[in-house]
Amino acid sequence: MPNGAHALIRTLVDAGITTCFTNPGTSEIQLVAALDSVPEMRAVLTLFEGVATGAADGYARMADAPGATLLHLGPGLGNGLANLHNARRAGVPVVNIVGDHATYHTPYDAPLQSDIETIARNVSAWVRTSRNSDELARDAVDAITVATGPPGRVATLIVPADVSWQNGARPAAPSRLVEPLPASAETIDAVAGAIRGGRRTGILLGGKALRERGLVAAARIAAATGTKLFAEMFPARLERGAGLPAVERLAYWPELASAQLAGLDHLILAGAQAPVTFFAYPGEKSSLIPDGCQVHELSAPQSDVVASLEALMEALDARDAVPALQPPGRPPRPDGPLTAEKVCQAIGAILPEGAIVSDEAITSGVALPPNTAGAPRHDWLTLTGGAIGQGLPVAVGAAIACPDRPVIALQADGSAMYTIQSLWTMAREQLDVTVVLFNNRAYKILDVELERAEMHDAGPRVTALLNLGDPDLDFVSLGTGCGIPSQRVDTAEVLKRVLERALAEPGPHLIEVVVPAS
Amino acid sequence: MPNGAHALIRTLVDAGITTCFTNPGTSEIQLVAALDSVPEMRAVLTLFEGVATGAADGYARMADAPGATLLHLGPGLGNGLANLHNARRAGVPVVNIVGDHATYHTPYDAPLQSDIETIARNVSAWVRTSRNSDELARDAVDAITVATGPPGRVATLIVPADVSWQNGARPAAPSRLVEPLPASAETIDAVAGAIRGGRRTGILLGGKALRERGLVAAARIAAATGTKLFAEMFPARLERGAGLPAVERLAYWPELASAQLAGLDHLILAGAQAPVTFFAYPGEKSSLIPDGCQVHELSAPQSDVVASLEALMEALDARDAVPALQPPGRPPRPDGPLTAEKVCQAIGAILPEGAIVSDEAITSGVALPPNTAGAPRHDWLTLTGGAIGQGLPVAVGAAIACPDRPVIALQADGSAMYTIQSLWTMAREQLDVTVVLFNNRAYKILDVELERAEMHDAGPRVTALLNLGDPDLDFVSLGTGCGIPSQRVDTAEVLKRVLERALAEPGPHLIEVVVPAS
Repeated sequence: MPNGAHALIRTLVDAGITTCFTNPGTSEIQLVAALDSVPEMRAVLTLFEGVATGAADGYARMADAPGATLLHLGPGLGNGLANLHNARRAGVPVVNIVGDHATYHTPYDAPLQSDIETIARNVSAWVRTSRNSDELARDAVDAITVATGPPGRVATLIVPADVSWQNGARPAAPSRLVEPLPASAETIDAVAGAIRGGRRTGILLGGKALRERGLVAAARIAAATGTKLFAEMFPARLERGAGLPAVERLAYWPELASAQLAGLDHLILAGAQAPVTFFAYPGEKSSLIPDGCQVHELSAPQSDVVASLEALMEALDARDAVPALQPPGRPPRPDGPLTAEKVCQAIGAILPEGAIVSDEAITSGVALPPNTAGAPRHDWLTLTGGAIGQGLPVAVGAAIACPDRPVIALQADGSAMYTIQSLWTMAREQLDVTVVLFNNRAYKILDVELERAEMHDAGPRVTALLNLGDPDLDFVSLGTGCGIPSQRVDTAEVLKRVLERALAEPGPHLIEVVVPAS
Repeated sequence: MPNGAHALIRTLVDAGITTCFTNPGTSEIQLVAALDSVPEMRAVLTLFEGVATGAADGYARMADAPGATLLHLGPGLGNGLANLHNARRAGVPVVNIVGDHATYHTPYDAPLQSDIETIARNVSAWVRTSRNSDELARDAVDAITVATGPPGRVATLIVPADVSWQNGARPAAPSRLVEPLPASAETIDAVAGAIRGGRRTGILLGGKALRERGLVAAARIAAATGTKLFAEMFPARLERGAGLPAVERLAYWPELASAQLAGLDHLILAGAQAPVTFFAYPGEKSSLIPDGCQVHELSAPQSDVVASLEALMEALDARDAVPALQPPGRPPRPDGPLTAEKVCQAIGAILPEGAIVSDEAITSGVALPPNTAGAPRHDWLTLTGGAIGQGLPVAVGAAIACPDRPVIALQADGSAMYTIQSLWTMAREQLDVTVVLFNNRAYKILDVELERAEMHDAGPRVTALLNLGDPDLDFVSLGTGCGIPSQRVDTAEVLKRVLERALAEPGPHLIEVVVPAS
């Protein structure tokens, strides 16, 4: 009879979880040892847990299957918390396995003792500490069931070391997946009635509504009824590009988002939360819903939003409407000294078919949407929860989920430094990731926020806190230090050449573009 | 009347908190802006919150005053959690100021919304969300009071953005410090009785008992009574070197620690917890207390352990006993190709008077204690809570607390990568830190743990998970990328020269020593 660790790994594999992102320690040593006895499980080593949790998120977004982590006690989970926050906001399934001290060791308050359940609770829909090796495999099945949903959630299973090492455990069979249902006929009727009412209506699409099937259904509705379509501010995964319905994302800055939604009488939420400003500002409203606009939820989080949109399309007799599709189109290939906008143009000019873009370019990326809209079809992954340091890990996970697709990480300098260790995992696993590092040597977004707060005359200390120069971060050295071929480019001509070569060659590459901060 | 942010910063400064380690965001923008109006506050920018919290710990250890952080919402606190765990274990005072959304924004569940109090609770003795700017300054005083103790604790004050920006706030005066009291006469009598009983006794010293006054009192007791002295396994700060009483630290591996304590009839805890193995192992006891050994607590955590030791010394008529002091002595200066042991010898041969050593060398550092014991007087700071990634941040904080003393960070490769962003803050602040990076290209300690678990025949996947080569991390590039003069050395001759030069020059230096893993 195998020990708990073996039964756990076997149970995960039998449920289809064949990749885990890890940074293990002594309390996980039995789980590590079990990996060689279950060859179907691929363990991807990260040098920091924030990389593991972000990679699990990126994997889940692209695989439509649970991303899994193996973490070391409370501090390991703590290190992974920010990207688990983002995963929770992305609504993807993530299963965390967190090692703990042996059950009998806990009362002794050893140095690494902490309250893991409390840490986990913040991001997890489900937390359980397994109590013995007999139950461990069934606990794992429960974790997978909760994580898989619908909707996708974060589930955290804490595994004491003795529960791992005790023999007599048995793997457990996976549970049946729950098929999500479309919205009720009453809901569809009510929403269809609102749209048919002839007033100004909009649909805010989120989650899986931003995949092709959902987009096409929504675009047919729009074509038949004049309803406007919007995408949520920070989608987990947006399918876009030539031949797909193009949907405008809700803007980050409140005044721009308000302008987008202005005048709507009805706003239909299709897989998205009610729109709200990212931060609060003195004297400004938090809600982005226009005054007098009525909000309708098309489908609950546990429902099938795509089927709901298709049912709505049928109810509106829109199935034969011709959806507006994005025509192919590339921006002109830029020349001359680099600016952030020219980098965005170069990316739009070169973005390959089937690319997966992990976008954490922040202020340097404002010109990305228009410049890439008509590029060949691709997936766009964004910073769902606002906890920066997600872009590089998500690229790791996406590349592992989709080894045949090129991954492009568009990455701001400040955010990159949170999980810079991701570069090493890209090198070790020889992932086909091209990192375009926008180095504007500033936390530029905070500069904008200072302006918005009407603190135009920032003193020297404030200025210093927003400035990432002094000394300048040298991302070519950082990339080289992690084993990735890295190059700095100064002109658009060189950028185009280097970007095309990086995409043509297998394995990871880093391209640092030093761009002005404004 | 100033706004809440200004009143808060002024209150911190008035209470003696004049340094904060930060990585701020939009919700802290008012606090950032207030920095220029309170020039006594020095804000040290870090690129990742784990650096900020570890630096606050290192600062508190050396300044004997609260270390302070300014963090960004739940994810920022989450990123700092591992080193707050270590700070909690170090028993040092830390005050976290964590920005939050405006109070009225919270119900809207914006992307960065999370339950900050829950995250904070894991490491904090005190958590409060300030409710309005009138109360903010008094809330800060309460936080400082709890943090200062005794004993030193972590206190977390959550500051919603509107509480920062509202006007009408007033700074609050600091509260009176609580002076810790020595142990009661009854306790002293009981402990003195145990020592006088003539059986084998030992004192386990921890916390402030490991500073000169405590060490000397304990050494006089030892000289007068034959009592053995031990230091806790991972001290926050151990004063040691030539001319101070030398105290053996409790070993990490259970069998070695058990051998140290074997045969004791009485164990007296002086500022230390009852000794326990770091991890649990199948079939082994968690407690390191020998069977039949009676444990006595000399002073409670909130008491003055040094005064208690001195009272015990008086009770034992040991005040005139001559304490055994460490004679001066340096190891021979090593030559030839480097090994971890030769690096430890070189450090012992060169360690300057008054140095502060931040030790996270893990397995590469096993030869450090004997090789540095007779070096000129210095402070030794260790990984108190076992959450790796603490060594470099603690060095940052120690260097800021003690700008006139050389700081040496003895750092293992695997742990370094958790908070490698520390290097940039060392460069920005031009801290006098010499980082000696032991690169053995492995999580060597896990290899040892595998052996201990009798899994001698680790398969290829397990081996890969413990191996940090493939690709090799290049710390010279990583240091250069963060703006630190960095050099790799291969021989002991070069190491000695480079180490002496690094210590002679102001500002940070990184020396990478590639050493065999075994």
